Amino acid sequence: MIKTTPPSTMGLSSAGSVAGNVYTGSDTDAFRSAMRRVVSGVTVVTTLHDGRPWGMTVNAFSSVCAEPPTILVCVNNRTVTASDIAKDGRFAANLLTQDQLHLSGLCARPGAVKYLDGYTVATPEFSEQVTMPVLRDSLVTFDCKVSEVRPVGSHFVVIAAVEAIVVPSARTPLLYGEGRYMHGVTLEESPAMLTALAWA
Amino acid sequence: MIKTTPPSTMGLSSAGSVAGNVYTGSDTDAFRSAMRRVVSGVTVVTTLHDGRPWGMTVNAFSSVCAEPPTILVCVNNRTVTASDIAKDGRFAANLLTQDQLHLSGLCARPGAVKYLDGYTVATPEFSEQVTMPVLRDSLVTFDCKVSEVRPVGSHFVVIAAVEAIVVPSARTPLLYGEGRYMHGVTLEESPAMLTALAWA
Repeated sequence: MIKTTPPSTMGLSSAGSVAGNVYTGSDTDAFRSAMRRVVSGVTVVTTLHDGRPWGMTVNAFSSVCAEPPTILVCVNNRTVTASDIAKDGRFAANLLTQDQLHLSGLCARPGAVKYLDGYTVATPEFSEQVTMPVLRDSLVTFDCKVSEVRPVGSHFVVIAAVEAIVVPSARTPLLYGEGRYMHGVTLEESPAMLTALAWA
Repeated sequence: MIKTTPPSTMGLSSAGSVAGNVYTGSDTDAFRSAMRRVVSGVTVVTTLHDGRPWGMTVNAFSSVCAEPPTILVCVNNRTVTASDIAKDGRFAANLLTQDQLHLSGLCARPGAVKYLDGYTVATPEFSEQVTMPVLRDSLVTFDCKVSEVRPVGSHFVVIAAVEAIVVPSARTPLLYGEGRYMHGVTLEESPAMLTALAWA
């Protein structure tokens, strides 16, 4: 383990001459600290627990590929959500909007009861196509069938086929990083670069 | 396949009364369109190709767990980067800052030559600890050893142990979503909720 100064007191500011602090080995604290810098959307994974909607905020949601439509989430293997997924092989990934900030906190409390009866869409119109709870006012909800569960350390990497997509009218994504909730503000427009970035 | 109106012309605006458009089955276009809504950081995966630094922008980077420090990336299986990773079992994930916007575009062009000799940190001081190319001015770089490669459709899900972390002085994360580059602006501070969110 090589360690200079902890990330919270980083004093290196000369980008050109100093690469930065370096941590090697399995430094869990350095990893957590480094991950705090990463900004991403906020995702609540919903399942049916004892027949009722249950939700857990996860740090890790990712698209995998578009052909066929596939996503993944990482869930702590000791959670109710993990056992629901292992049992039923189904879940929904709800990407949150700013309107759902309260849900992010509610569903992130370790060990708490996280029934979400009051927060789901009553959906008689698509009950045959969508099997898992859809959170109201989400950016998008992916209704998924698990294709693979890989145990990795304390977590499961859950890879899943997207079987239905619920797309509400456009809303503002909720972001989280650096210990804060955020929203995104456009930097600049550069269509050529942007086209290239999509699904590289 | 049940389809109402395409996402680009969504006319539903009443969140309370209408859940949104629903797409079912393997609708690749709907999936791509839905994924465009998701805002996240931008990651360039670097490898050594013919002994030189090579980089590819990926849509998918995620932490997996902190114990042990583990991340994953998803890479198109037909890319140079995928073959480098399969051959060497090593890569670095460089999370980009606003200062590196040009690199995001450069490394996202399909089929282009993506040698990055001029963009890496000259690092005699940590050459023994860090094996893969570290991009200058990154938010954070994770030097990784592959533990598992899962083929899924057109992509590989690459799960990897973090063996070194390079943490430069604090910089502004580059974000991408909705077809645009962005930066994050703080919404509000709510320490209790934020503590709960970390590693739920």
